[in-house]
Amino acid sequence: MTGKKKSAQASIEAMYRVFTIPEAPESTLSRIDQNISRNLAGFLQEHIVAVERDLAEVEKNFSDSAIPEKPIFVSEQAQFLLDKLVANSVHTASPSFIGHMTSALPYFMLPLSKIMIALNQNLVKTETSKAFTPMERQVLGMIHRLVYEQDSAFYRKWMHDPRHALGAMCSGGTVANLTALWVARNRAFPPEGSFRGLHQEGLFRALRYYGFEGAAILVSRRGHYSLRKAADVLGLGRDSLIPVDTDERNRIDTDALREKCLELQKQKIKVMAICGVAGTTETGNVDPLESMADIATEFGAHFHVDAAWGGPTLFSRTYRGLLKGIEKADSVTFDAHKQLYVPMGAGLVVFRDPHLASAVEHHAQYIIRKGSRDLGSTTLEGSRPGMSMLIHSGLKILAREGYEILIDQGIEKARTFASMIEARDDMELITRPELNILTYRYCPAEVQQALAVADPTQSEKINSCLNRITKFIQKTQRERGKAFVSRTRLEPAHYAHYPCLVFRVVLANPLTTREILEDILEEQVELAGDEGIREEMEILHQMASAVLDQKRPDTKRA
Amino acid sequence: MTGKKKSAQASIEAMYRVFTIPEAPESTLSRIDQNISRNLAGFLQEHIVAVERDLAEVEKNFSDSAIPEKPIFVSEQAQFLLDKLVANSVHTASPSFIGHMTSALPYFMLPLSKIMIALNQNLVKTETSKAFTPMERQVLGMIHRLVYEQDSAFYRKWMHDPRHALGAMCSGGTVANLTALWVARNRAFPPEGSFRGLHQEGLFRALRYYGFEGAAILVSRRGHYSLRKAADVLGLGRDSLIPVDTDERNRIDTDALREKCLELQKQKIKVMAICGVAGTTETGNVDPLESMADIATEFGAHFHVDAAWGGPTLFSRTYRGLLKGIEKADSVTFDAHKQLYVPMGAGLVVFRDPHLASAVEHHAQYIIRKGSRDLGSTTLEGSRPGMSMLIHSGLKILAREGYEILIDQGIEKARTFASMIEARDDMELITRPELNILTYRYCPAEVQQALAVADPTQSEKINSCLNRITKFIQKTQRERGKAFVSRTRLEPAHYAHYPCLVFRVVLANPLTTREILEDILEEQVELAGDEGIREEMEILHQMASAVLDQKRPDTKRA
Repeated sequence: MTGKKKSAQASIEAMYRVFTIPEAPESTLSRIDQNISRNLAGFLQEHIVAVERDLAEVEKNFSDSAIPEKPIFVSEQAQFLLDKLVANSVHTASPSFIGHMTSALPYFMLPLSKIMIALNQNLVKTETSKAFTPMERQVLGMIHRLVYEQDSAFYRKWMHDPRHALGAMCSGGTVANLTALWVARNRAFPPEGSFRGLHQEGLFRALRYYGFEGAAILVSRRGHYSLRKAADVLGLGRDSLIPVDTDERNRIDTDALREKCLELQKQKIKVMAICGVAGTTETGNVDPLESMADIATEFGAHFHVDAAWGGPTLFSRTYRGLLKGIEKADSVTFDAHKQLYVPMGAGLVVFRDPHLASAVEHHAQYIIRKGSRDLGSTTLEGSRPGMSMLIHSGLKILAREGYEILIDQGIEKARTFASMIEARDDMELITRPELNILTYRYCPAEVQQALAVADPTQSEKINSCLNRITKFIQKTQRERGKAFVSRTRLEPAHYAHYPCLVFRVVLANPLTTREILEDILEEQVELAGDEGIREEMEILHQMASAVLDQKRPDTKRA
Repeated sequence: MTGKKKSAQASIEAMYRVFTIPEAPESTLSRIDQNISRNLAGFLQEHIVAVERDLAEVEKNFSDSAIPEKPIFVSEQAQFLLDKLVANSVHTASPSFIGHMTSALPYFMLPLSKIMIALNQNLVKTETSKAFTPMERQVLGMIHRLVYEQDSAFYRKWMHDPRHALGAMCSGGTVANLTALWVARNRAFPPEGSFRGLHQEGLFRALRYYGFEGAAILVSRRGHYSLRKAADVLGLGRDSLIPVDTDERNRIDTDALREKCLELQKQKIKVMAICGVAGTTETGNVDPLESMADIATEFGAHFHVDAAWGGPTLFSRTYRGLLKGIEKADSVTFDAHKQLYVPMGAGLVVFRDPHLASAVEHHAQYIIRKGSRDLGSTTLEGSRPGMSMLIHSGLKILAREGYEILIDQGIEKARTFASMIEARDDMELITRPELNILTYRYCPAEVQQALAVADPTQSEKINSCLNRITKFIQKTQRERGKAFVSRTRLEPAHYAHYPCLVFRVVLANPLTTREILEDILEEQVELAGDEGIREEMEILHQMASAVLDQKRPDTKRA
């Protein structure tokens, strides 16, 4: 062999080795692997750097745009990932990080995920998934039953029927909502006479054939942004997502909803879907689903419920009543990577009527042939991993009782936290928890008193100042890295719907304790006294004093 | 404490434990975990049952529709999964399973996946992904550079620019294609005058405003079915996906393409997008991308290339020329879980022009705020896992040279296999490999001779009989579990476009050897002699003899 040939042969053999020879037990990567298995919390604690580095700094480690020419050792990349990626990632499992919807995972999810990845099944067809297909159908059946409570005979008939589907698995809530509205849109303009259906001829001809000027999706102002995205994707346009006003508890105003529907009807706009929210992303409130179902029936609209967050509340005997009416929905979105405690990348939608999915059925020659059991014929995605195995395991290992405990504890912890906030005179509870989400802000007693008596202009000014303070506290607390609450903008009725920035807290991590919550509040108060916001704070106090002085004319003038 | 309270407390503690205490090293699950780390191939070999069980049988293990009330031990579920799910799953990593696009994975992907899952980041926003965001942008930049070969200055300017995106990561090729066509559709009907753009006002008003009767997407007959699905989802209707004829090598006929465009133009149908295929799913052929780009320019259409399969061919100095013209595409789809050898669930689309993604930009109040670095503002999906970490690791560890070896070896193996098939007189090569995919069927010498001289009616009858035989062999071979080729239906020009079933083979697993390929052919020949297909085989031989007798009138009559 020449030298060149020899080196080519060596490269080929090296390549072969990465597919055949496991990492040595003492290698960097194997040690990480074992570390994670033995002590995940410790691994995260040790390797994720608490204090946040500026993202522009972090970017420098990821600035090369050229794919490297020469292979490197696995250990080199493992070390790079530890130092540069893991170190600067977010400790989503931390019990002090209560600002997002990602919680700690049950330990068993890790080795189970490894099995899933090792098997590398593709759920698009049975040829690459075999038993995973009936397993996924069972998971869809179980969630369907949790929502719709049909009898066993119903599930015996439909759960494994290859020509029907009780739902569709996907990567998350956004795709689940999109799938539901795709079904709704196609069913709103079905084949009739010479018209072969919207799915075949498109929206333009559908509206012309049926004599409509447009089609609308209605949802409360607190609906998830994925619904507006879906309206865009589906060709309806973002304008067709009609936001409906909410009551003071962030739940859709059903009178306003009905009025909007009537208005749209007059404008010859088809009320295609009404979406209820079971757990608004920002405030965790639940729409009055029963009345919404009635309105949907009245207008012949598809009734979808986005229960991406709140769906698992159905596990709780105590709180499942909060979702009353969900069983009347035509479709319901669940996110498994939220309160089913499955790793990121698992959502699903269930359909009350097993025939519904046929509105989006697709076939091809080499897979998902007609009559096959292939799940790919009714999913939006094509190739998909076997995430349903993790949902299956959660449902079996934790069971209804386990999930009930998680749900109940979350809601009760949110109530406790709300009481803690209310008990203080320097914090203001903005939205009371209905599920396990609440919002509040830092607001000194004097400022609260001032806001109670301020006129609209004064109130706006104070709130605007508070917004800057809220933003500062939230951002700085995050950067310090000990705790994390998120922030959002709400328009509270008692401040004349002025946009107020608030801290948003999600209490889904079972490891979050009362002490942790106390520490979070303490740090926020401390940050309110920080040098970086002192000027703003002085202005705030001046404004508050001025309002209070003005409103106490008698004492002043005396 | 009362008994009830005690038991409630015990349940809560048990629940707390699954979040805090790792699986014991000697537990069932830990043993599986270690097994997989030490010897993945052995684990799969030992636990996946070779002989296929009927799916109806397998379903019985997944027939319960009620979520169990009481928790079970992790070990119990682990054992259940081993016996019922893993045992009846598909050995996608087997080097004898050459019928699908899932290959063996490099060993390092497993522990890396564990890190990814342990970190449980959510890429929708930096708040839950930090360093993962620039890392993902780098991956998009690297693939962009592989395709478009811009200079370093270009990437310095754009790669980390928060207001722009060089692409979008997603769960797979279907969503990647959908994202590209979503961008194309919105850009085809932009804001103008009083019209606020399709994304805002929808397709109906867009067509009315611009005076079109419809909008079309053109692709060859061999285009992936996800494009038709996208046409449906996007509200264009499946009819708007216009299939264009191909030449004898399954590549789009550019004359026919241009003619179709002209025809559509006359019908006032907007040519919205032209899709090239770089690696057809069934035959692995590549469209003439350069000429297609010219036609797209001529008609002002978005030019998309679906390189879900063939994209990584660009790593090969020898074969990258096959994709010439791809750099003229406005958008290109890549599937990472195919030839980037990443586990299931990773795809992406890159955009030539960093401004393109703005056509689908979305914002919300609590995340993906305007000006933020959050990747979620231009992805179709919302919450997403950190799969890009695995792509990043593949690009670093295998590097260009490593992927080149994999690509080159696959193409060369496909050529070897084609020669092996051609060297036999009982097999018929249907499509010659251009990349690493080929199709063939079992067809005895005598039958091949007969087909060469048969008239159309005779040819149809023989092919129809061959179809039943092909189906039998493919299905039985799969059920036996030693090897797997897939099957599809092609319409070969030399059989007057009669639909022929064929074996489809994808040679992407580096562990597939020549011996394995020989064994696969041998087993197919053996199955052709099986009792179950004997009658069909006799009919086939009779038909062939009749044709040959008839066509040899001289010798017969003599």
